[in-house]
Amino acid sequence: MFKSVQIIGHGRVGSAVRARLAERGMRVEDDHADLTLLCVPDSAIREVARKIAPGPWVAHVSGATPLAALEPHVRRFGVHPLQTFTRARGGEQFDGAWGAVTSDDAEGRVRGTWFAQLLGLRPFAIAEADRVLYHAGAVVASNYLVTLYRSASRLLAAAGAPPEALVPLMRQTIENGFDLTGPIARGDWNTVDAHLAEIARRAPDLVPMYRALADVTAP
Amino acid sequence: MFKSVQIIGHGRVGSAVRARLAERGMRVEDDHADLTLLCVPDSAIREVARKIAPGPWVAHVSGATPLAALEPHVRRFGVHPLQTFTRARGGEQFDGAWGAVTSDDAEGRVRGTWFAQLLGLRPFAIAEADRVLYHAGAVVASNYLVTLYRSASRLLAAAGAPPEALVPLMRQTIENGFDLTGPIARGDWNTVDAHLAEIARRAPDLVPMYRALADVTAP
Repeated sequence: MFKSVQIIGHGRVGSAVRARLAERGMRVEDDHADLTLLCVPDSAIREVARKIAPGPWVAHVSGATPLAALEPHVRRFGVHPLQTFTRARGGEQFDGAWGAVTSDDAEGRVRGTWFAQLLGLRPFAIAEADRVLYHAGAVVASNYLVTLYRSASRLLAAAGAPPEALVPLMRQTIENGFDLTGPIARGDWNTVDAHLAEIARRAPDLVPMYRALADVTAP
Repeated sequence: MFKSVQIIGHGRVGSAVRARLAERGMRVEDDHADLTLLCVPDSAIREVARKIAPGPWVAHVSGATPLAALEPHVRRFGVHPLQTFTRARGGEQFDGAWGAVTSDDAEGRVRGTWFAQLLGLRPFAIAEADRVLYHAGAVVASNYLVTLYRSASRLLAAAGAPPEALVPLMRQTIENGFDLTGPIARGDWNTVDAHLAEIARRAPDLVPMYRALADVTAP
């Protein structure tokens, strides 16, 4: 398939890809590779792609960016790791995660799938027209999980409780298969109203978020 | 401290408490125990407490309910396990979790703390006046985590992607210490606007939630 890869970009994802390809024994070159992989910010993809001389396969790792951003290249695909990365860890961050593969044709699909598997991802196909909705889902699940933790931490701290006490609760919520418990599951709207009144008094900027989440949670 | 406990209520929490006390060798009685523990719905606490003949210590495991709901009993405390429970598991569900102890006086605090530790919880004190805010934080962290997963799953399914692919992402978001990545962390508001437009088209009921979360996430 690919014998060598050039990686452009040294951010969180680029660093993790570099570490993983080294573990896999893939040759990483500074130029003339079979595949040029763009691990640059979404807003830079179009410009960087235009500067790459035609020849190699070109791919990006963005969630929401269309394949058309890789023009003028036509041998191209996208592999978006459905994962959050830190510089503190290496290639093992891909293990167990899934990867969204987008391609224009069968050859792109085969090559994108192969590359996702090389990274250690479980590949699935995502159509060009569905990428933005898919990526919105990823942001809701991951980035807004951070928002929930930070918001809940503020409420606990304001109540004099240790915010780190939330961590085992959140881990177990996932381990229990996202089973809904608590006041809304019990139909206990008195408690929800009491929460809203108290948040309005002590952390009023969080009221719209609490209310919008309650509306979506209600059966 | 307590030599015997009567547990009223056979819900998720009551069942887990029963299992844990059996593991700990605590005598569980049907009456005349040193401690009567109410594991009933919040809305039933007042009525059940009034029917208990004076004598034993009386406690509840509710997050938001005031201690005054245990009247006429004055030897009383609250221990709220900051955890989500399932009937599929037993006493080990308390391990690693924290417990909020509320009391009127020093003796109640000592006894509530002792009982939280007997369950395997890491106790912390929460003042009566702060219980509702504290509980709101617990709901944001746990119940709304379920809401995020369910909402994100809908978006992925609508995009033709496997919702279970979100689980490793969400686990790693916690393991990485709730480090914020993604478009909002990068200041990429074009992507956020694209998400909102696509959600408005394909899952419009989720727009207010996405927008409220984005507002709170923005630095």
